Amino acid sequence: MSGSPGQNGQRGSVGIVETKYFTFAEPPDGMVLTSGARLGPITLAYETYGELNAARSNATLVMHALSGDAHVAGRHSTDDRKPGWWDEMVGPGKGLDTDRYFVICSNIIGGCQGSTGPSSINPATGKPYAMDFPVVTIQDMVATQARLMDHLGIERLYGVIGGSMGGMQALQWAVAYPERVRHCMPLATTHRLTAQGIAFDAVGRQAIMADPGWKDGNYYGTPGPEQGLAVARMIGHITYLSEDAMRIKFGRQLVKGQEDYHYGFESEFQVETYLDYHGRGFVVRFDANSYLYITRAMDYFDLGADWGGLDKALARVQARFLVVSVSSDWLFPTNRSRVVVSRLQAAGKDVTFTEINSPYGHDAFLLEYETLGGLLEAFFAADPP
Amino acid sequence: MSGSPGQNGQRGSVGIVETKYFTFAEPPDGMVLTSGARLGPITLAYETYGELNAARSNATLVMHALSGDAHVAGRHSTDDRKPGWWDEMVGPGKGLDTDRYFVICSNIIGGCQGSTGPSSINPATGKPYAMDFPVVTIQDMVATQARLMDHLGIERLYGVIGGSMGGMQALQWAVAYPERVRHCMPLATTHRLTAQGIAFDAVGRQAIMADPGWKDGNYYGTPGPEQGLAVARMIGHITYLSEDAMRIKFGRQLVKGQEDYHYGFESEFQVETYLDYHGRGFVVRFDANSYLYITRAMDYFDLGADWGGLDKALARVQARFLVVSVSSDWLFPTNRSRVVVSRLQAAGKDVTFTEINSPYGHDAFLLEYETLGGLLEAFFAADPP
Repeated sequence: MSGSPGQNGQRGSVGIVETKYFTFAEPPDGMVLTSGARLGPITLAYETYGELNAARSNATLVMHALSGDAHVAGRHSTDDRKPGWWDEMVGPGKGLDTDRYFVICSNIIGGCQGSTGPSSINPATGKPYAMDFPVVTIQDMVATQARLMDHLGIERLYGVIGGSMGGMQALQWAVAYPERVRHCMPLATTHRLTAQGIAFDAVGRQAIMADPGWKDGNYYGTPGPEQGLAVARMIGHITYLSEDAMRIKFGRQLVKGQEDYHYGFESEFQVETYLDYHGRGFVVRFDANSYLYITRAMDYFDLGADWGGLDKALARVQARFLVVSVSSDWLFPTNRSRVVVSRLQAAGKDVTFTEINSPYGHDAFLLEYETLGGLLEAFFAADPP
Repeated sequence: MSGSPGQNGQRGSVGIVETKYFTFAEPPDGMVLTSGARLGPITLAYETYGELNAARSNATLVMHALSGDAHVAGRHSTDDRKPGWWDEMVGPGKGLDTDRYFVICSNIIGGCQGSTGPSSINPATGKPYAMDFPVVTIQDMVATQARLMDHLGIERLYGVIGGSMGGMQALQWAVAYPERVRHCMPLATTHRLTAQGIAFDAVGRQAIMADPGWKDGNYYGTPGPEQGLAVARMIGHITYLSEDAMRIKFGRQLVKGQEDYHYGFESEFQVETYLDYHGRGFVVRFDANSYLYITRAMDYFDLGADWGGLDKALARVQARFLVVSVSSDWLFPTNRSRVVVSRLQAAGKDVTFTEINSPYGHDAFLLEYETLGGLLEAFFAADPP
């Protein structure tokens, strides 16, 4: 890995990185999932940045949200147009300082970015699994990541961190593997979705499954449910932005060069073209079936359910917690984080809570990297690797 | 009209009612719309309840929201399963007391409930207009209602009242026809949509237009874009309910009889089956093209735009105002109503503002009829017909 080191604390890039793959749970054993189904082999795509120290005590696992991937920082080649999705946070001198921490980012099972998911070939048939892929849960995602940590020789993680669905995984890590997590940082997340969260997911899935291009999931080799997936993404996108953010960004502005209404149904308001653009862009890079599986995993997630309730679940944790919410996040609002924080406090756990004052809505956990970086630095300082 | 009169102030039903039709703007003249297009003939479906007094001073016009119709109260026949959409508010002894007021409810152009809209026959072709129907605006809706008032011999309305899009029409009435409105009661509405409101509308339209059953709008005589319209309605439905209302109503409850997850993609959570049910039910009674036209009218609405700004528009009004918002309405939140209220106050107008404290979200304007009825009674008492 070549990079621009952060000399004297200067922020730099991790440089050129590559995605790696870990395959395990070979048949016939495979891995038994939460649902009882057996899956194997399982491949996880992951990337690492920085160096594992001799004590193996500085490994920090980053977990991504719905549409993310293992490529959190740096570029895959010198002509790579964009860096990883959290490049502002991961690198020399950055919030997750790769001069200090060995940072790992793992993709998830059920996904479509190099890990085993519905678009992967089912060894039993030689064809993509499609809807024969078993339903996976957040618990399953974390269980496979634990196998990856075994493979990397990391018994105990210095930190687990993630926003949104990545935060669900962080919570699950701290509860399911308490002895393996020293610091847990769930960002803009919740221990379980509200009815409204499930409702938005359900409508997105309906949009995909209503598209004739979906073909009961057997669309591989064809264009697939492009329109349905774009609509699902647009719905999601609205929920990731606050009303304020949309007002600041778009207001009621018409598209550039347009002075007055056209009195038609083409996109005319800037917010319309923005949603169009991002909806269409998403279709190119994401598998519609993965969208179904991953949103279902979020719906099903209920941190306390496996342990007889949230309090009993949280009683298990050994990690120090830094819980962060965003003032304008209405998808995973602050009151959802406060539930977890107050229960952790009641259980006598070491927990720090901050609400970031930001107009950017749910997406702020990706955008407010300076504030977040400062919070991490202060949090880590009390208990370095 | 036979009814159960509200003797001694008791609440009663308006009884059996019928929808009437008013047709005007016959070709070749027609009516010139905001867009400049000419439309005719135009039919408006409407219903009336109570009696116009001798002074013609007690007529109150109710305007409905996106999916409403002219049938606001009573039943169409003795075996009618459900009464009109605001039956709790309109009747003898009710908030809009038909013993005192002559209540009129008019359907809208662009709609599909008896008024001229995209599903109506285009006299020029003998086929449904479909997307050849001109884009209509809130201004156009109100201009046609003004023609209906002319037809009914009502020069000045005692009141105009409506929630959501009906509230936009109420505002437009007071500004465009200031001398014709004595009381204006916009409920849970706004003088113009925010970017977020436009975004939700846009995604709903995308869902419809992405459905191959839509056929560029030429689906009449076929099932049409049933799935797309259902998805659009589901999106809408989420926005009409508050997170609290959904939590109280559904929480994370699974469908009746189901104890544990099925690990599949059928609807399992109650909130999912609720959305399914209402999405499918909507398809039976609503025209997808009307959904496109009506949401576009809402997007375009900007009360001040025709008059050089909101202040200049509101300077025109002569009506007393009762503006009502709902504490948990996040689609048309209280701060949107406050903009109108503060500008009316600044212009020295007679305005009363109330935020109803209700957990029901945007839909509360339909549900909190007791509170609303009391507010109306007090408001009207100061200036009776």
